[in-house]
Amino acid sequence: MNPIDKYNQRAQKINSLLCVGLDADFAKIPKHFLKKKFPQFEFNKWIIEETHEYTSAYKINSAFYEERGDQGMKELKMTMDYLIKNHPDIFTILDAKRADIGNTNNGYVASIFIWLGFDAVTLHPYLGKEALLPFLERKDKGCIILCKTSNPGAGELQDLLVEKPTSAQGFVEARPLWQIVAEKVSKDWNKNKNCLLVVGATYPTEMKKIRSLVGDMTFLVPGIGAQGGDLELVMKAGLNSEGLGLIINSSRGIIFAENPKEEAKKLCEEIRKLKYALNRV
Amino acid sequence: MNPIDKYNQRAQKINSLLCVGLDADFAKIPKHFLKKKFPQFEFNKWIIEETHEYTSAYKINSAFYEERGDQGMKELKMTMDYLIKNHPDIFTILDAKRADIGNTNNGYVASIFIWLGFDAVTLHPYLGKEALLPFLERKDKGCIILCKTSNPGAGELQDLLVEKPTSAQGFVEARPLWQIVAEKVSKDWNKNKNCLLVVGATYPTEMKKIRSLVGDMTFLVPGIGAQGGDLELVMKAGLNSEGLGLIINSSRGIIFAENPKEEAKKLCEEIRKLKYALNRV
Repeated sequence: MNPIDKYNQRAQKINSLLCVGLDADFAKIPKHFLKKKFPQFEFNKWIIEETHEYTSAYKINSAFYEERGDQGMKELKMTMDYLIKNHPDIFTILDAKRADIGNTNNGYVASIFIWLGFDAVTLHPYLGKEALLPFLERKDKGCIILCKTSNPGAGELQDLLVEKPTSAQGFVEARPLWQIVAEKVSKDWNKNKNCLLVVGATYPTEMKKIRSLVGDMTFLVPGIGAQGGDLELVMKAGLNSEGLGLIINSSRGIIFAENPKEEAKKLCEEIRKLKYALNRV
Repeated sequence: MNPIDKYNQRAQKINSLLCVGLDADFAKIPKHFLKKKFPQFEFNKWIIEETHEYTSAYKINSAFYEERGDQGMKELKMTMDYLIKNHPDIFTILDAKRADIGNTNNGYVASIFIWLGFDAVTLHPYLGKEALLPFLERKDKGCIILCKTSNPGAGELQDLLVEKPTSAQGFVEARPLWQIVAEKVSKDWNKNKNCLLVVGATYPTEMKKIRSLVGDMTFLVPGIGAQGGDLELVMKAGLNSEGLGLIINSSRGIIFAENPKEEAKKLCEEIRKLKYALNRV
């Protein structure tokens, strides 16, 4: 099955564009979980049961599990086994920000798609399409390419102006690197219709421009909540022509809230209201 | 201790710029290791004992261990424990090609530098310096930033021409993205003198240019052997003013050779000969 179809079906079925980030930071999960044999897994299981009815995707950031070595990897695997068994229609993303040369990427494909069973992974574009082919050729898996990231210093490289020779007149037109990445991915890397882009909620102006360039492609949107992204601006800038096209992630704002279920419900309903209002415009 | 000093001391002590890549690809290690309880660790132990007298650095590509899930991570840790105990003066690199937003990079720092105990890690530059601070602020650890990678398609993004406004005259000067990265890292990211660059052996012309831009910075050089890089061209282009500045990696060409010790010795001696000849020029 096409990975974006999987996400869209879930999003339409429950009317939600919400992605919950299972970033089970060992330093922040409630103390009583720490006494259990598998604290990160038990915490995730609880969060999943509290939030799944509002959730179209779960995103897991690999760093918070790798931090705990092989034990963390085991609990990441347990979390995925639990999700696949109990909520197989929810889209799963490993936020691992990988990308090596082609030969080596086969190892990551085996780890992330085969061993763990994720539907999608986040990837750096710096090594180019040729290196990413082991990911891109997996038609059933999503390749979420970093385009404009949510961090304050994202622009240092991503906003660099790149020359584009326009052959007819012979003069050069400059575009920011994030725009080049968006265009390359949408026009060339996306042969299997399995590419998505990371576009941070903290950059709605850039998101609007990217939406205008790439048609209905789906964006993974980090940066709502703790990082300060504005939901209304994001939805105005990013919804596609089908009222989809966004995977809106919240991690810390939901999972470390006093009542994660209420927070997930609140954000989901806010998204629904905005979606309704914007479709009316 | 400064990580580059650690590498240089070892390189000078044994007169070698050789880095052996412990990419214990499970599909390629000799069959008799597969019967052991910890096949990747046992294979690595054997390779280390065969090659250490010629080796100034070991580079481990994380993908080949992650491929085997928590079991692979355990054997990666066992390999590092073995190296730290038996060969503490050899420089260790995790080729993990990481880079997330700042908050999340703390997880990778904990995993790679604290849990595993590596001296250095490879990092993508796409998120900028601000995101990489958790790595860059570790004065005792090496941050090896991808600049010009060894893969055939590296140029797709890395060769893009970036505009540099030259304020005085108001006109623009274009430079490839890899050059911008090299300049940013050497002039701004390297405050703690703990930055290195990845420069592929397959691009000696670019290496020469980078050497001219960044002074005596150290390069990690993949791409000798299986990928087709030419050792003499690399050493002509990349040696710094102290006859150092290169960490010349060979993985498959040594570890899967019939006689890894002979291969390591051969490459080490070739490096020594070239170094001697070039210092005479």
